[in-house]
Amino acid sequence: MILRSKDMKVLVHNEFLGGKGQLTNTHFLNNENACGSGRLFVKSMLTPGSSIGYHTHKGDFENYYILSGKALVNDNGTDYILEPGDSILCRNGDSHSIENIGDTNLEYIALILFDKDNA
Amino acid sequence: MILRSKDMKVLVHNEFLGGKGQLTNTHFLNNENACGSGRLFVKSMLTPGSSIGYHTHKGDFENYYILSGKALVNDNGTDYILEPGDSILCRNGDSHSIENIGDTNLEYIALILFDKDNA
Repeated sequence: MILRSKDMKVLVHNEFLGGKGQLTNTHFLNNENACGSGRLFVKSMLTPGSSIGYHTHKGDFENYYILSGKALVNDNGTDYILEPGDSILCRNGDSHSIENIGDTNLEYIALILFDKDNA
Repeated sequence: MILRSKDMKVLVHNEFLGGKGQLTNTHFLNNENACGSGRLFVKSMLTPGSSIGYHTHKGDFENYYILSGKALVNDNGTDYILEPGDSILCRNGDSHSIENIGDTNLEYIALILFDKDNA
């Protein structure tokens, strides 16, 4: 099944989870087609200065894979700078945040998958 | 958990699944950290003219999300051209192939997830 870019669901979130600015999620795979594997399959875009607030995952886990831009992430209380090609895994029970600290849009793949090993 | 680009597993496959040329998979999430949700989380790269042969998925499904380049995909017998931002879903029991028909490398996110609804 083909899903064209122009037909994808695009959701804009302001101050998402207590963050700043604007997050835009382009849903390249919709949940109803994910066969119970997860609940988010998107390309995320944060404009310069925008962020997603610090939050905890319960029952699922999230992976970010940076495509472009410069990210400051907090991984369970520790800050890291991520560049394109880097990834961060927030396990079931762990916490994270992400902020665009660069001059250009920050784009990354975000996947929230269910923890089937600890369901 | 941070996984730097330089520390990711990179696997090169020649004539993958009966295809042509070279496929390079960069594993941004390793299976042992995927909590049973799936078995492949990669950025794939096909050089111009390279392809993955037509094959069927059983028990899992695969989603491609095109990042750059121009792809010819076959989705259960029908050809489509995909551009950056497009995606293709190969459901459990369906078949697909992909070929780089452009002049530049074809890069895309490939996810193979388990079909939990029909396990």
